[in-house]
Amino acid sequence: MTEPSAPTAAVLLIGDELLSGRTRDINLQQIATYLAPLGIPVRESRTVPDVEDEIVAAVNELRAKYTYVFTTGGIGPTHDDITADAIAKAFGVGISEHPEVTAMLAERYKAMKTDYTPARRRMARVPHGAALVANPVSGAPGFQTGNVFTLAGVPQVARAMLEDIGPRLETGAVVHKVTIRGTGLREGDIAEPLGALAKEMPEVAFGSYPWFRSLGDNGVHLVASTIREDLIEEIAAKLEAIVAATGVRPERLEDSNQ
Amino acid sequence: MTEPSAPTAAVLLIGDELLSGRTRDINLQQIATYLAPLGIPVRESRTVPDVEDEIVAAVNELRAKYTYVFTTGGIGPTHDDITADAIAKAFGVGISEHPEVTAMLAERYKAMKTDYTPARRRMARVPHGAALVANPVSGAPGFQTGNVFTLAGVPQVARAMLEDIGPRLETGAVVHKVTIRGTGLREGDIAEPLGALAKEMPEVAFGSYPWFRSLGDNGVHLVASTIREDLIEEIAAKLEAIVAATGVRPERLEDSNQ
Repeated sequence: MTEPSAPTAAVLLIGDELLSGRTRDINLQQIATYLAPLGIPVRESRTVPDVEDEIVAAVNELRAKYTYVFTTGGIGPTHDDITADAIAKAFGVGISEHPEVTAMLAERYKAMKTDYTPARRRMARVPHGAALVANPVSGAPGFQTGNVFTLAGVPQVARAMLEDIGPRLETGAVVHKVTIRGTGLREGDIAEPLGALAKEMPEVAFGSYPWFRSLGDNGVHLVASTIREDLIEEIAAKLEAIVAATGVRPERLEDSNQ
Repeated sequence: MTEPSAPTAAVLLIGDELLSGRTRDINLQQIATYLAPLGIPVRESRTVPDVEDEIVAAVNELRAKYTYVFTTGGIGPTHDDITADAIAKAFGVGISEHPEVTAMLAERYKAMKTDYTPARRRMARVPHGAALVANPVSGAPGFQTGNVFTLAGVPQVARAMLEDIGPRLETGAVVHKVTIRGTGLREGDIAEPLGALAKEMPEVAFGSYPWFRSLGDNGVHLVASTIREDLIEEIAAKLEAIVAATGVRPERLEDSNQ
């Protein structure tokens, strides 16, 4: 990157259920997809269990290395929800019930004719000095501690929280993409010319992604990414030519900016 | 764990496409699901881009910390397939075409009336001293270097490779699970009794997993995991009682051993 500002992000997924195979994560994908048009690439992701020392170590490594860190999971009311405490520990700050949050939750539960129990009060605990992140879906907020944003694990809630975070982020140069699909193509058919093109255009990242579901339902997607929007048409034509030279019909997919 | 043998695993997912949001990973889930019945819990996962230094650093951290490491992605024929080289570098060994693999691939491509090109020969490159991992789906093998298993990124190929790896693994105590679903339940409704039960039975891990798709299609799954199979019925009854006490009908789900 030759840009003066090149913010980066890491995603820390927290939860035993992600490592046991019970749950297939979708938060990494939705965070990356949200950040891409802001010019903030996700450079690394980690998944750790509900174990305080593991969360603390990962938070401290990642926040030192990347502009922003997004955590998901572990901010509910149950005994295994320990993310808020771990974030406080990572930053060496205290944690207690946030007056504004606890007033909001008390009001919310009253309206729902539900007891505001000690367990529910846990969701009002926020590391000292943190800024809140609104949760329009289910009430209990996320929070921002320095460059670390702590989101819920439930995908619909995490997604909604991103909307409140977006305006706080320093944006970078947007990466533009083009994808050419070759159904029936094999990577080996295009590896040489694709590698040559990658050498010829070092300002562009070229990726080759095979899929294989069954014989006939297989092929390769060629993806090029660059901050040079002016190059996109030239790149698309070159990738289409590479695919066409194998006898396969190239299909250009809509740029999804991912 | 009081078991004498308690093997652990980490999963390292390699590929720009996982961090850009282009692809939603499924390999972590399928590796964890494969290892669970062998008594090998996945303790951590990382996702890194197609950048050699990042792969090398992650491999070296993870292989020192866990019994086994499983990598996925980056072993195809294109210029961005650099995993084999990174593994060789991490272990400080050389890398070259494996005679057995290159003979097998040459034969395979001959039968397919396809040229065995320099790009395709890249798939025969294996770190020195590595053992092969069979790929019955698309031919080009994975490999085992010390305690690190290198698999393809295409999920169907990665899954097939696990079958060849399973018999090589030291197994541990199998974790048994029970899941009770409460539709319409909120975590706050059961947090106190669940936390009390978790304290009462420290040999059992209790998790609480809310889902929320829309009003009416929301609820909580309570999951208990333990190597004490003899406790499963007692635990199930206690979790069902916790759910029933809220007025919600508990549903016991089939133990999927995940």
